[in-house]
Amino acid sequence: MAPDIRTLSLKKPVDVAEYLFRRLHEVGIRAVHGVPGDYNLVALDYVEPAGLYWVGNVNELNAGYAADGYARVKGISALVTTFGVGELSALNAVAGAYSEYVPIVHIVGTPSTSSQQQGALLHHTLGNGNYSTFSEMSKPLACTSVYLTDPSDIASQIDHAIRECYVQSRPVYMTLPQDMVQQKIEGERLQTPLDLSFPRNDEEKEDYVVDVVLRALEAAQRAIILVDACAIRHRALSETHALVQQSGLPTFVAPMGKSAVDESLPNYCGVYAGDGSVPEVRVRVESADLVLTIGAIKSDFNTAGFTYRVNQLNTIDFHSRYIRVKYAEYPGVRMNGVLRKVVERLEKSSLCIQAGPSPHNNPSEASDGRFGANTITHAWFWPALGHWLRQNDIVITETGTSNFGIWETRFPANVTLVSQVLWGSIGYATAACQGAASAAKDLEGADRRTILFTGDGSFQLTCQEVSTMLRNGLNPIIFVICNAGFTIERSIHGETAGYNDVQPWRYKDLVPAFGAQEGQYKQYTVKTKGEMQALFNDEQFAEAKCLRFVEMFMPKEDMPVGLKVTAGLAER
Amino acid sequence: MAPDIRTLSLKKPVDVAEYLFRRLHEVGIRAVHGVPGDYNLVALDYVEPAGLYWVGNVNELNAGYAADGYARVKGISALVTTFGVGELSALNAVAGAYSEYVPIVHIVGTPSTSSQQQGALLHHTLGNGNYSTFSEMSKPLACTSVYLTDPSDIASQIDHAIRECYVQSRPVYMTLPQDMVQQKIEGERLQTPLDLSFPRNDEEKEDYVVDVVLRALEAAQRAIILVDACAIRHRALSETHALVQQSGLPTFVAPMGKSAVDESLPNYCGVYAGDGSVPEVRVRVESADLVLTIGAIKSDFNTAGFTYRVNQLNTIDFHSRYIRVKYAEYPGVRMNGVLRKVVERLEKSSLCIQAGPSPHNNPSEASDGRFGANTITHAWFWPALGHWLRQNDIVITETGTSNFGIWETRFPANVTLVSQVLWGSIGYATAACQGAASAAKDLEGADRRTILFTGDGSFQLTCQEVSTMLRNGLNPIIFVICNAGFTIERSIHGETAGYNDVQPWRYKDLVPAFGAQEGQYKQYTVKTKGEMQALFNDEQFAEAKCLRFVEMFMPKEDMPVGLKVTAGLAER
Ligand SMILES: Cc1ncc(C[n+]2csc(CCOP(=O)(O)OP(=O)(O)O)c2C)c(N)n1
Ligand SMILES: Cc1ncc(C[n+]2csc(CCOP(=O)(O)OP(=O)(O)O)c2C)c(N)n1
Ligand SMILES: [Mg+2]
Ligand SMILES: [Mg+2]
Repeated sequence: MAPDIRTLSLKKPVDVAEYLFRRLHEVGIRAVHGVPGDYNLVALDYVEPAGLYWVGNVNELNAGYAADGYARVKGISALVTTFGVGELSALNAVAGAYSEYVPIVHIVGTPSTSSQQQGALLHHTLGNGNYSTFSEMSKPLACTSVYLTDPSDIASQIDHAIRECYVQSRPVYMTLPQDMVQQKIEGERLQTPLDLSFPRNDEEKEDYVVDVVLRALEAAQRAIILVDACAIRHRALSETHALVQQSGLPTFVAPMGKSAVDESLPNYCGVYAGDGSVPEVRVRVESADLVLTIGAIKSDFNTAGFTYRVNQLNTIDFHSRYIRVKYAEYPGVRMNGVLRKVVERLEKSSLCIQAGPSPHNNPSEASDGRFGANTITHAWFWPALGHWLRQNDIVITETGTSNFGIWETRFPANVTLVSQVLWGSIGYATAACQGAASAAKDLEGADRRTILFTGDGSFQLTCQEVSTMLRNGLNPIIFVICNAGFTIERSIHGETAGYNDVQPWRYKDLVPAFGAQEGQYKQYTVKTKGEMQALFNDEQFAEAKCLRFVEMFMPKEDMPVGLKVTAGLAER
Repeated sequence: MAPDIRTLSLKKPVDVAEYLFRRLHEVGIRAVHGVPGDYNLVALDYVEPAGLYWVGNVNELNAGYAADGYARVKGISALVTTFGVGELSALNAVAGAYSEYVPIVHIVGTPSTSSQQQGALLHHTLGNGNYSTFSEMSKPLACTSVYLTDPSDIASQIDHAIRECYVQSRPVYMTLPQDMVQQKIEGERLQTPLDLSFPRNDEEKEDYVVDVVLRALEAAQRAIILVDACAIRHRALSETHALVQQSGLPTFVAPMGKSAVDESLPNYCGVYAGDGSVPEVRVRVESADLVLTIGAIKSDFNTAGFTYRVNQLNTIDFHSRYIRVKYAEYPGVRMNGVLRKVVERLEKSSLCIQAGPSPHNNPSEASDGRFGANTITHAWFWPALGHWLRQNDIVITETGTSNFGIWETRFPANVTLVSQVLWGSIGYATAACQGAASAAKDLEGADRRTILFTGDGSFQLTCQEVSTMLRNGLNPIIFVICNAGFTIERSIHGETAGYNDVQPWRYKDLVPAFGAQEGQYKQYTVKTKGEMQALFNDEQFAEAKCLRFVEMFMPKEDMPVGLKVTAGLAER
């Protein structure tokens, strides 16, 4: 081949795939999620040399969910799929990440640029020569889409996409044609790390807003803080922690914000979800004369069916793109800087603090007469779980009873909760658990347990991701809530309808069927409170360096109170 | 509620969901594939009263593939998903159906029209109040999209969508908002069956083309017929059969056209796939002076990598939208009518027939020295299979070695082959097997066996559809080709790369784990030719009324010759 003039002028030529994976390494990614396909195979040869490893998920939807789980724990993640068949399979997972502000770099291996130009009749096409259909479909699910077709642009496209992914905290979409993988581009850029900082607020505007907030805080008699998902997703946790600790104000979380706040703090007061809250929480929040919401997402499942009773006249909302004080909006002001200054300038002595409730992990004894005294009920289980959890645990819950039950668990410090309350795609939790467990392993320092709660119905959608956990030597603790089907759906419609039943599986037998070796796993079946308590007391179970799989039986008709309220079933 | 003036004027008011499902029943659908979700639950109450049944798939991608398999056997199928999470999960399957002309009515249960108008922040949304994103994403994958929002239009929208689905043989997309499910519409329309006939060709034009074809046929000395996928997908099989039988011309099939022709006919000559054909087939086809192609799709995997050596000057192409004679195109002429007239007007005596090869099912004895004499190789297996297959069998193969191996099997009469050679999404075959087996059960008359061949790698993507088979009491025969991973990918790149390995499963243990009861299944492991032959001789295996699951071990490095050629690995 004649030497390419562009290549000759490069100071440190590197292959496109090398450049890409080295950048991903630089921003903290270690695991690359995805499924091979002939359009991405050559690129995969570059994963390990860049210091990353290939997870090898079982299918693309699972890979997408897993990448989501990884990003929620490790900060950002990567997903590699193949043109058409692979990328479309992952779309639902990517949509969930878009909806819930999870940064995933989605790299799609495509046919070569020349095949595309010719409109060749290749496998994985619609047969119509149109090569832009799939990238168009992905567009609304990405904050940025880049198509790597010209080596002279590629380095800056990659840098731009990764930065946007991180800063906007949403998926980006990137096509990598076969004939671009080994093109040479300028490697010298790699010596300058990507700038991942947030754009700074306009100083005068920021100061103005800080002042308004401080005055409101000083004037309030019964102020509280309510922390929600976007505090986590937009990386405002340290600012939030500082505010909660410095101010000492009673602090609540919305369901999607759960684990954003250190729940072992004395001023942590519990989960507020409108009518789905425990009475003391509801009364304290709804009687506040000032509510500082941080990163609120007032979706149906996050508010127990839009039952917030908080007046906007008493509210200051902190967001990533604006601050709202009562009805006044301050666009273009990001919460992080504002919160930092509020904490700096706050005079604690000038605040009036009226304490809130202190949530406990004592199971309510008022047992539901429908179930035997020894039956594991939601009212009993979730508080009991609170005693067993440890600092640094990563807890994953699923759309279904567990997403509502977890409201009733008070966490130790530094727990991370992973759940998908807004997008709510079932099957998510099991696959996200794979990603979260990989991320836990890749985190430096802490030795964090990964603990999954999923429904039996949900588990069926993505069960084979347990195989990926085994393949990667991961040791999560998996609880499958065996309650004979779709209890959450029964609460909404079709209580006894056949479509809410599922095929009864022997769930725990799947683990060896997925190739677990002896010593690599332990199985448990718990049917009574006594058995569950014994398991909670079993130090071996808590600590074992193997995958632990628990079938936990609960009544088909039982559900957490938060779900009852959301489904409109609670007598109040 | 005040009586609605529109409802009052209805002669036979029926609920929208009743209307919809009765129409689906009318066109031959019995099974409704899908997964429940709160936005579609109420509609599901109407499935059984309409004489249909709910399959209850394990996830939406599988449901989509299964609907595809069902439609390929039963003519058309229905898929029900829920807004966002459900529909997007199914997109890859729907894209495959679009690509390969498979008619699926995809019904998406959505939030109520009022929630949509308000832009409510509901679960399963992107959180931006935009309710059209998902339907826009589905648009390029449907031949028609209808949004059922106004009761006065709904009946005609439903009728239009089902007709287009059938006639164009492609998916249609339909949104059914929660508040429309029980609206009243005119039921009297149901007394007039849908018109599913193809638009007729312009008579003069048709006659003209018929004449051109007949003259070419009469002039030819070495004419042949080459049948491909669109003969099946555009419902031209009876016309094709008539032509093959009446003319007596040597008849070949392309890989995607396999099973379109009765392979027990004396003038059936085998599979033509360019350089991937056996030598006698290649010579006969490529020396023809006239090739009548019926429904050709000249994609890479269907032509062993674009290695057709057939001159367009010797070719007449029959399609659903046009006929092409050499370079002359006749747009707007559908093959069905033309073929019918060609058969009617053909003077057999005026044809010159030069016979072609007669494919046999004798395994080539030239064993590959790399493998032991008793090892099950592709060269041995696929012809051997031909002896074991029976009339009316439905055979499903997967992207991977089996899609290429099946070229070497000569079928008995009336076999149906289901495979996805153009779209090529792995995991398809296992889920499509569920749909095909359901369809076989729903067909009146024939008692057809459903037989699946899938790779170990592919099976892992959608394994849990075996659970749906059990749940529905289906009794397919499942062969998993255990060759330690992605052999087809190894043939392309990364022969020994870790990313082409898969987690080693205990495949057959999944069947009881998925809840199979004793008597409901049998498991087999075959590792040698002897064991395989014994199984072929086992009448019990062939006939048992239970699900049969076979782990068939083949060497990781072995592949059918068609795959070698396509991957460019064959020494020729
Ligand atoms: C991909 C997807 N398909 C369908 C749904 C609708 N859906 C929501 S929850 C649920 C049932 C969950 O059942 P299970 O996991 O058993 O939960 P539990 O019994 O604990 O409520 C279904 C089908 C969904 N949210 N996502
Ligand atoms: C959904 C999807 N993901 C990825 C691919 C890429 N791909 C094509 S074939 C294949 C491997 C199939 O392996 P297996 O089923 O074991 O087949 P065999 O070993 O018989 O070749 C892969 C990963 C694909 N076609 N579809
Ligand atoms: Mg359940
Ligand atoms: Mg294989």
